[in-house]
Amino acid sequence: MSMNSFGRIFRVSIFGESHGPAVGITVDGCPAGIPITVEDFLPDLERRKAGAAGTTPRKEDDLPEIVSGVFNDTTTGAPITILFRNNNTRSKDYETMRKTPRPGHADFVLDKKFSGYNDYRGGGHSSGRLTVALVAAGVIAKKTLTGININATLVEAGGNTDIEAAIAQAIEKQDSIGGIIECRAKNLPIGIGEPFFDSVESCISHIAFAIPAVKGIEFGSGFSATKMTGSQHNDNFIDEKGTTETNNAGGINGGITNGNELVFRVAIKPTSSTPQEQQTWNKETESVEPLTIKGRHDLCIALRAPVVLEAAAAIALADLMLVGKSLGA
Amino acid sequence: MSMNSFGRIFRVSIFGESHGPAVGITVDGCPAGIPITVEDFLPDLERRKAGAAGTTPRKEDDLPEIVSGVFNDTTTGAPITILFRNNNTRSKDYETMRKTPRPGHADFVLDKKFSGYNDYRGGGHSSGRLTVALVAAGVIAKKTLTGININATLVEAGGNTDIEAAIAQAIEKQDSIGGIIECRAKNLPIGIGEPFFDSVESCISHIAFAIPAVKGIEFGSGFSATKMTGSQHNDNFIDEKGTTETNNAGGINGGITNGNELVFRVAIKPTSSTPQEQQTWNKETESVEPLTIKGRHDLCIALRAPVVLEAAAAIALADLMLVGKSLGA
Amino acid sequence: MSMNSFGRIFRVSIFGESHGPAVGITVDGCPAGIPITVEDFLPDLERRKAGAAGTTPRKEDDLPEIVSGVFNDTTTGAPITILFRNNNTRSKDYETMRKTPRPGHADFVLDKKFSGYNDYRGGGHSSGRLTVALVAAGVIAKKTLTGININATLVEAGGNTDIEAAIAQAIEKQDSIGGIIECRAKNLPIGIGEPFFDSVESCISHIAFAIPAVKGIEFGSGFSATKMTGSQHNDNFIDEKGTTETNNAGGINGGITNGNELVFRVAIKPTSSTPQEQQTWNKETESVEPLTIKGRHDLCIALRAPVVLEAAAAIALADLMLVGKSLGA
Amino acid sequence: MSMNSFGRIFRVSIFGESHGPAVGITVDGCPAGIPITVEDFLPDLERRKAGAAGTTPRKEDDLPEIVSGVFNDTTTGAPITILFRNNNTRSKDYETMRKTPRPGHADFVLDKKFSGYNDYRGGGHSSGRLTVALVAAGVIAKKTLTGININATLVEAGGNTDIEAAIAQAIEKQDSIGGIIECRAKNLPIGIGEPFFDSVESCISHIAFAIPAVKGIEFGSGFSATKMTGSQHNDNFIDEKGTTETNNAGGINGGITNGNELVFRVAIKPTSSTPQEQQTWNKETESVEPLTIKGRHDLCIALRAPVVLEAAAAIALADLMLVGKSLGA
Repeated sequence: MSMNSFGRIFRVSIFGESHGPAVGITVDGCPAGIPITVEDFLPDLERRKAGAAGTTPRKEDDLPEIVSGVFNDTTTGAPITILFRNNNTRSKDYETMRKTPRPGHADFVLDKKFSGYNDYRGGGHSSGRLTVALVAAGVIAKKTLTGININATLVEAGGNTDIEAAIAQAIEKQDSIGGIIECRAKNLPIGIGEPFFDSVESCISHIAFAIPAVKGIEFGSGFSATKMTGSQHNDNFIDEKGTTETNNAGGINGGITNGNELVFRVAIKPTSSTPQEQQTWNKETESVEPLTIKGRHDLCIALRAPVVLEAAAAIALADLMLVGKSLGA
Repeated sequence: MSMNSFGRIFRVSIFGESHGPAVGITVDGCPAGIPITVEDFLPDLERRKAGAAGTTPRKEDDLPEIVSGVFNDTTTGAPITILFRNNNTRSKDYETMRKTPRPGHADFVLDKKFSGYNDYRGGGHSSGRLTVALVAAGVIAKKTLTGININATLVEAGGNTDIEAAIAQAIEKQDSIGGIIECRAKNLPIGIGEPFFDSVESCISHIAFAIPAVKGIEFGSGFSATKMTGSQHNDNFIDEKGTTETNNAGGINGGITNGNELVFRVAIKPTSSTPQEQQTWNKETESVEPLTIKGRHDLCIALRAPVVLEAAAAIALADLMLVGKSLGA
Repeated sequence: MSMNSFGRIFRVSIFGESHGPAVGITVDGCPAGIPITVEDFLPDLERRKAGAAGTTPRKEDDLPEIVSGVFNDTTTGAPITILFRNNNTRSKDYETMRKTPRPGHADFVLDKKFSGYNDYRGGGHSSGRLTVALVAAGVIAKKTLTGININATLVEAGGNTDIEAAIAQAIEKQDSIGGIIECRAKNLPIGIGEPFFDSVESCISHIAFAIPAVKGIEFGSGFSATKMTGSQHNDNFIDEKGTTETNNAGGINGGITNGNELVFRVAIKPTSSTPQEQQTWNKETESVEPLTIKGRHDLCIALRAPVVLEAAAAIALADLMLVGKSLGA
Repeated sequence: MSMNSFGRIFRVSIFGESHGPAVGITVDGCPAGIPITVEDFLPDLERRKAGAAGTTPRKEDDLPEIVSGVFNDTTTGAPITILFRNNNTRSKDYETMRKTPRPGHADFVLDKKFSGYNDYRGGGHSSGRLTVALVAAGVIAKKTLTGININATLVEAGGNTDIEAAIAQAIEKQDSIGGIIECRAKNLPIGIGEPFFDSVESCISHIAFAIPAVKGIEFGSGFSATKMTGSQHNDNFIDEKGTTETNNAGGINGGITNGNELVFRVAIKPTSSTPQEQQTWNKETESVEPLTIKGRHDLCIALRAPVVLEAAAAIALADLMLVGKSLGA
């Protein structure tokens, strides 16, 4: 597993920067013979787009350019590379962040880690912009998961289950908020996932935490399970197919799918780029100073994240299924 | 990343079954020249051992047998394999679980996944017994993390922060409980972790979910961050070293350590083997039947898990540090 | 190691087809801070180009398009993706190969392996065209190998060390030929390579056999060593730096560089696309039939391969050096 | 691919030292349900054993100890670890090699690479002793390759095809010799191997060069192909199954098996431990000095290597087949 790749058989490799020529992704290990066209990507890309209340006014066309691996509208078995050109960039907004790192952002650590050589414009390679590429890979992953339905929704924003109200309040306060996204996958076969390091939870959490702003994940009852007893939490089996009466396990026992619905939730922190004034260290003046973030930003990035989480889950599951297939599962 | 291995440079490969001859682990990619003896393993192994109230009466000597990679009490740079013989096994306890899979356990999914060929005795390769090997690898990992202090503690059991009271209540009720373990790592350098798929959160969560019974993980403020605004959650920088006023990020920005304390918590579900009667499907009678788990089990496995979580964190961090070192970080 | 990727830290992922929109490569794990411009790629790309006697008349501009990972003419530490657009394609030349697979080519096996979904035009993803991307990655790899000089030359063509004469004869006979390329690397530090599976020979041969038409490789005395005795073959040490009197080992002992010059040779088979009439099985007529290859082809692909082999060696060595650096070597 | 592991799905991890407690190997990714007993290992282990003229008088019992992954004489799907205890070691023979590194051996490079911490006794982790573990993994790999026959034989020793005569001459001269081993695999399906970096040649050569003393490899006509023309070398197809008239390609086109016999040869250099007096640098006296190797050694290690090469080929092919299976090939 190298730095910018994920997966063992169905393997995605991401590249690009927010304000460079393009962002993109290569999907290796996709089986041959799957029909795919540019149109197949559009619905999921549309769900990720900005435009609604609480999202950034930066809009990109986000038309995927299929560079390789597809011939006659069908996957060939060779690596599929998809590019998204960056057209709508305003780099001058970001010049000041080098001397005054934005709280909650990666500016400070990237500058240190890469000795100042990182492309700092708009978050560079660490920008949420790269999730457009993840969504594209997710579309391909979903295509390989025949008959399986993955669906993620924002179930809470700013601590409020009435999400429209939460957004309205954030706009009024001009302060960013986070939220909780729940993802469910139906019709997964029994036996996906591996007993130890490659449990379903391990693989999904690995890629889920690659999504900017994710700070927690729980499967089934998750943290609330810690307040239950074993007799409350255990899911009794009620038939020979492994159907359980309850689903506190979230569809996973011992790291392996049990045929019940896969359920997990992630915590999205409030968007780091809040319009509110904050404090940071100014490298030039060598003092703490107030900072107000400029540029075009989301007040609630969690609004656009469900489809990204679906993509992440689909990629992890597609890989686990192919690995399982190789071993006869 | 193969099924039973984790890590890219500092790489651990686990093997063994609960009731087979031994469990063990191989650590590849450990630098040469690190002093290590059998005695170095004993304190962490002792912390994992059973014996306290609420833990299983099965006791193992758990003396590590260093098979390779250590010469003159020093690592050689070659793979280090450590074995733990299984002496204290009672296999007959487990015969019935094949027809009546235990709720909350992996019996059902393992039987399906491996077409009945899995070693079902005591959970086989999926047993918590294997965490003894993980702890041993963790000891080696900690040795490579010079100057870094990793510490995990049980902060809540059965929803109660008074943990002795929680255990007493579980014993009285004869029903198993779970808990929350918090892990903190001090003195990590800035710049550990990679921008996208190999974020610190990704790598730690990947291996943390390999620990049986872990069902959730959160970094810094985690799920409670979803109820905060950006101006509340962002950690203001207060000096040139990147020290922050608060630590809602848990020491990680953009997937990379920021020099502040690394903080994360995991949710441990209640031990599946509760003494309470449960219901399961009996394959032979083809009906739902009551089941009472026999054998020697922990009422609160969370009591023994902190050192396992420390080991997992140490392994993930050791690997990320070595990868970072190769690239000059 | 996934299908279309190579390397553990310095990791290349290749994509594209001969007659698709582009071929390209992503280099992950390249250290930040290395100066690089489009001009840096041109000399090696020029060496790979067609145009000389014995090479294909198909010419591509082969201007690298740097899509990511470079900012202000310097590597950033993020993945570097480089594209080469395919402008000069004539797909109609290749239509017939589906019914009559070309001897010596991959047409037959690709059709079977990918159930007919592969992009068969011009060899598709298996085309020698992709070596342009490998050369580009090699340029980056060489940049990381400061002070190390890698040089490959064609030392024999069609069994003749007078290479001009060999080419003239091939043109006269209108039959393709192969050759032997020798590669030498100077100033490698002692200690590169790993004791067992990742020996220098293992890693270089792995990537060298990815180059189309390579059918053999030998290090140092190689196959001729099998005719020597131990006292003839062993290289006596003559100083404390490990300099040896002879270099039958080709600079490698036990899979690890010993500080002497690294020397290896590869065998390039004659170009499969010979102008001579051959026999193949016609799927439609169900009989053996004569076949004459059309299209624009090299009579001696070995002429263009030395720079590709250099690139392969540089990539393998760059990766081994970074791995070694992580472990303190 | 980490230092001491090989393979993506069927993955072997080797450990141990010549004079440590044991050598061993873990095989992860072996499908469940394959019958296996200790007896299954004995024939191949016997072929590797010393005892014949020209081999070392050191004899080990070489009884495999199956530590994990096998239950009721059947693979379970969990990692299989096999140990071979080292009983017959004489460490004192090796004390002097630290000051006077043996020509042709890895003593010098290991000392440098591991800063003197390596276990230098008997070659330590780099010893040919570890091939006993490779042979064991090969036995398991062969079990997964149902219907496929892999056979390696020594076809030339010391440049002589009359191998008994070659050995007799080496004993008479008291100088070690090498040889050429040819390996053939029958009944491989069409489509094994991947188009680019994971060609059959890439994967087999990677692991073949892990065998101590291998210095060259060629597939099909190999180096002699460089003296042929395209019309001589290309293998004409003669039926719809892809059977070819000749087999200059050695059963591989474009890195992928074509259904004809897989054929390759490796060059084994003369055993480095020749009884003849050699010259080396003495670190203590700081001068070139004569050296005579003591200890128990093979005059022609090539005699014992065919079964090791078979094992290497079987491991590489088992992995490629499982990867192919996952993608539907």
